[in-house]
Amino acid sequence: MRYELYYWPTIQGRGEYVRLALEDAGADYVDVARRSGGVGRMSKMMEAAKGTPPFAPPFLKAGKLVIGQTANILLYIGSRHGLAPKAEPQRLWVHQLQLTIADFVVEIHDTHHPLGPTLYFEDQRSAAKKRSGAFWDERVPKFLGYFERLIAGSGGPYVNGRRLCYVDLSLFQIVEGLRYAFPNNMKRFERKVPRVIEVRDRVAARPNINAYLTSERRIPFNEDGIFRHYKALDA
Amino acid sequence: MRYELYYWPTIQGRGEYVRLALEDAGADYVDVARRSGGVGRMSKMMEAAKGTPPFAPPFLKAGKLVIGQTANILLYIGSRHGLAPKAEPQRLWVHQLQLTIADFVVEIHDTHHPLGPTLYFEDQRSAAKKRSGAFWDERVPKFLGYFERLIAGSGGPYVNGRRLCYVDLSLFQIVEGLRYAFPNNMKRFERKVPRVIEVRDRVAARPNINAYLTSERRIPFNEDGIFRHYKALDA
Repeated sequence: MRYELYYWPTIQGRGEYVRLALEDAGADYVDVARRSGGVGRMSKMMEAAKGTPPFAPPFLKAGKLVIGQTANILLYIGSRHGLAPKAEPQRLWVHQLQLTIADFVVEIHDTHHPLGPTLYFEDQRSAAKKRSGAFWDERVPKFLGYFERLIAGSGGPYVNGRRLCYVDLSLFQIVEGLRYAFPNNMKRFERKVPRVIEVRDRVAARPNINAYLTSERRIPFNEDGIFRHYKALDA
Repeated sequence: MRYELYYWPTIQGRGEYVRLALEDAGADYVDVARRSGGVGRMSKMMEAAKGTPPFAPPFLKAGKLVIGQTANILLYIGSRHGLAPKAEPQRLWVHQLQLTIADFVVEIHDTHHPLGPTLYFEDQRSAAKKRSGAFWDERVPKFLGYFERLIAGSGGPYVNGRRLCYVDLSLFQIVEGLRYAFPNNMKRFERKVPRVIEVRDRVAARPNINAYLTSERRIPFNEDGIFRHYKALDA
């Protein structure tokens, strides 16, 4: 079966956590909105009056099933493609970690949009500076420190032990994104989470991921996505 | 089996979505942190070096299993207690809706804490006013309008059609919370989402929910929770 992924065509955004999983798994998929007419098709599916219209991208069409919400998509594809355990307790655990990453992603987005997603960055620059300060003082240590501790507790080298799961792919994306958006802060911080950085390195070295990252399918980071590089926010 | 729910003892917060489900189901549970020594037990479980320590409350202990993240807990208990369909496509759909509610809850919290969870409201009052304006102009219509449309499309009276699911219980909580935090705005807005309000009324009339709401187990809304009433934010 060929999956259809629906996500904004010019950013990595939340869709990237799904792309990384599909790519690592070598799954057959089309990134619909990057094709001609695709954004229109995506909008139509969200506007559907009946059925299961998603609130927002990303969503995945798997046969007749339309699945929305990043972590929910990963829950669906994870155990089907060897990226998550099959037993329910472990499946829920890995999903729980992905939801914790989703919470972190919201806070990352809020560093440049603390006054909400509907105002431009330029109209909330001063609030964004305050929020970014608190983000690096309190929130990055709390979130990445948590994953560092989990990797140590699991015996490593991955968050769930010896086998990679989709959460590790997402951690890779978090490290890459923070390096892009906050190079100065991240440079100082990385030494505190060596196990997280090792996960990043192991993921980057995987053949399918390496092939993806060097392909045109990987959209470069830019200032419309979740991770944005604004010098004013990177002390 | 008696469930153990772990959540902050003085607020409804994110724990309330779980409490409502357990109460409606008539499940046997203990609200651990509201008992003597319970907050200490909760902290210890989060600090565990091994196993599956949750990042934050709420979490639910079900036998040996410890499940964190509100929507994940509901995913686990939903189909076991008749509050969600059992078939995978519908289970994923209901979970997807709960994750959309979780996104909305973050935005509700951000109305009074746009500069982050680590600063006091008084230190972000002006930013909070801006964010609350955008919240009512754009975000409430988008989120509640989405659920209104779903109820219409499902044939109603609930989001997933004729049978109530845990998402309906959460929608009840959203309406109650918005009425508490933003009485003026909500009074004006409610007429635009009559089906959502009908869900609220139907949930409130359910015997187990009614008994819960009038018991001491229901913590009153207050200014430490997600929904806070600050006059300055309610135009």
